[in-house]
Amino acid sequence: MGFSDAIIAIVITLLVLDLRPPDAEPGELLPALLSEWPTYLAYAGSYVYLAVIWLNHKAAFTRIREMDRGLQWANLGILATLALVPWPTAVIAETARSGNLTDERVAVALYSLVGALLCSSWLVFFHYLARHPELTREEVDDSYFAYERPRALVGIVLYLVAGAVGVLVHPLIASAVFLILPVFYGLTSHGRDHEARPTSRP
Amino acid sequence: MGFSDAIIAIVITLLVLDLRPPDAEPGELLPALLSEWPTYLAYAGSYVYLAVIWLNHKAAFTRIREMDRGLQWANLGILATLALVPWPTAVIAETARSGNLTDERVAVALYSLVGALLCSSWLVFFHYLARHPELTREEVDDSYFAYERPRALVGIVLYLVAGAVGVLVHPLIASAVFLILPVFYGLTSHGRDHEARPTSRP
Amino acid sequence: MGFSDAIIAIVITLLVLDLRPPDAEPGELLPALLSEWPTYLAYAGSYVYLAVIWLNHKAAFTRIREMDRGLQWANLGILATLALVPWPTAVIAETARSGNLTDERVAVALYSLVGALLCSSWLVFFHYLARHPELTREEVDDSYFAYERPRALVGIVLYLVAGAVGVLVHPLIASAVFLILPVFYGLTSHGRDHEARPTSRP
Amino acid sequence: MGFSDAIIAIVITLLVLDLRPPDAEPGELLPALLSEWPTYLAYAGSYVYLAVIWLNHKAAFTRIREMDRGLQWANLGILATLALVPWPTAVIAETARSGNLTDERVAVALYSLVGALLCSSWLVFFHYLARHPELTREEVDDSYFAYERPRALVGIVLYLVAGAVGVLVHPLIASAVFLILPVFYGLTSHGRDHEARPTSRP
Repeated sequence: MGFSDAIIAIVITLLVLDLRPPDAEPGELLPALLSEWPTYLAYAGSYVYLAVIWLNHKAAFTRIREMDRGLQWANLGILATLALVPWPTAVIAETARSGNLTDERVAVALYSLVGALLCSSWLVFFHYLARHPELTREEVDDSYFAYERPRALVGIVLYLVAGAVGVLVHPLIASAVFLILPVFYGLTSHGRDHEARPTSRP
Repeated sequence: MGFSDAIIAIVITLLVLDLRPPDAEPGELLPALLSEWPTYLAYAGSYVYLAVIWLNHKAAFTRIREMDRGLQWANLGILATLALVPWPTAVIAETARSGNLTDERVAVALYSLVGALLCSSWLVFFHYLARHPELTREEVDDSYFAYERPRALVGIVLYLVAGAVGVLVHPLIASAVFLILPVFYGLTSHGRDHEARPTSRP
Repeated sequence: MGFSDAIIAIVITLLVLDLRPPDAEPGELLPALLSEWPTYLAYAGSYVYLAVIWLNHKAAFTRIREMDRGLQWANLGILATLALVPWPTAVIAETARSGNLTDERVAVALYSLVGALLCSSWLVFFHYLARHPELTREEVDDSYFAYERPRALVGIVLYLVAGAVGVLVHPLIASAVFLILPVFYGLTSHGRDHEARPTSRP
Repeated sequence: MGFSDAIIAIVITLLVLDLRPPDAEPGELLPALLSEWPTYLAYAGSYVYLAVIWLNHKAAFTRIREMDRGLQWANLGILATLALVPWPTAVIAETARSGNLTDERVAVALYSLVGALLCSSWLVFFHYLARHPELTREEVDDSYFAYERPRALVGIVLYLVAGAVGVLVHPLIASAVFLILPVFYGLTSHGRDHEARPTSRP
């Protein structure tokens, strides 16, 4: 877990590298800072997204007893795709600043692809665990990870549909969905866990 | 703690990325280096600030036995706001170099907002722990985290007042307060701990 | 292992720093994104390469009981050379974009040198362990690390030959070999391990 | 130790961020890469320097049983100054490329100041441990850290003398000393440890 934790911590922290003193004429700092609002929203959105991923990742690993090579690679797939998240986020923030509608459609399409890719890597991960119950802890129900698969599948569909609506109707709809989806996943994951006693030590 | 430690370590280390070889005409390296003094002061100030936060974070977590979802999010709130600190710090250093008074007022206002936000996230964190004594270690007094709340509340007020004075009177006063406040919090936190035997292992 | 894990995690995550919103004229985001394909391929290739190195590193360390100064330095040699990998990768991606054949030859030559250097550092590491069986766990066959040496040696030769073919015949051949080699090493390492029960805990 | 390890790992890895595809005219990649030799030498030198610091840091902490606030701050002082090392290193590499003798003198003076500052932070750290034997492990000789102080003191003097010679005679002499000093400290530290059995676990 040290390696996964480190990668998620680094990705989540690299987000702030986009927060820089703006290039502004003397006396124009305030409007320059205010015009950066898409970056602030993108920071907040990406942070929540990656935080939800980290909590779900942690919740999954408290149920895993041992890792074999296949599970290592499935986990590396999740890490590779979550590390991509800041990139389409920055592209959306960039196009929101420039305000070109064609570019905004491209940006939300890119984001929806990365989102769908990330959900796909979770699907592979859950599927692998559903097929290899010998890797999970004894107290974990054998069907636990099988039941997690539909949630990942729904995520793939939702990201692709949101991207399609963003391209065909208006990019803002897609951006709103991208902000809301992680919150939804964070809350539903909470729902599944709420009967369990807290088990993670600080 | 591995995740929190990693994030604070990364944020504190990213500060040095602002220390770069200056763009100077041949033979002009010395004046170019000297004119960067606001960056050096900002590095020192941010480092001490984040170091104090890390020590306080560590001190809080030695008293926590288990984490539930709510405490995870409260902790993620602290991490999200402390990761912001290098940004207003760099903005202040930038305006100190350009020397425009209007921009300097904006910069200290930004810093005071981030400082107040950071203290607010601590307030939420302490409040959550005060309400959930079942998450703290048995030997910790039930009122311990309740008594930490006023310190966070005072921090919010002090940052906002310092920012207001910086905007209305002179930005330098605010910058001085921003440098002194973490030292004060570091020392008072030390005061609270001094009767305890050192417990953290290297 | 914490230190090695952290370094590999950082190097693998720094790869995404190359994924930035492209500088494009308004309305030209899509072609600008598409023209960045060498960066995407380089990201994928470097990620797989570093993931294979991490898995092999982990597999080696599950067989090590104690570290002396010599082994520390051998390990630091591996970390120093693997941290170089993103650099020639970025150089190849850069030349693929500009399309100058002379530069592409130089880029693959640079990559083959770094690849050979990395395999050399593994050779030193395995050789040191083969000579110091007292540092390995008791259940590890004394000849285990001696048998790993030829694999590292073959790697050195393959990287140098691929580089030479890239310079003398065509750079694309070398780039293809650079993409395939880590996959080959990942699979063969898997082959050696497949009879072992999974032992690493999450 | 997780926090210190993470900071040193990040600092050592940020060094490679200076290794970038050079801005070169088409067909001019090879001379552009070759002209970057000061950066390569700086990478190698800084890496060895930081690796030696890490090994010494690790060696010191295997002898520490508990940390109090004072030792935390002494350790944070070491981390703050070691994080500075890449900065004067990059300044020296930059001046070596431009070749202006005045700037080179300034660069080695800066490096010698940072080197002396780093040795000073070790001096404070060793002095604190010499005065607080209750923080060290029982099997550690009470005079161990007292005897480490002169080594740190000699380091301060050597860095300052090398800087002065670099300014007054020739910068190259100083640069050579800066490359050799860490190797010397690495070897002498090895000398002190060689009778001990290896104790660190991977």
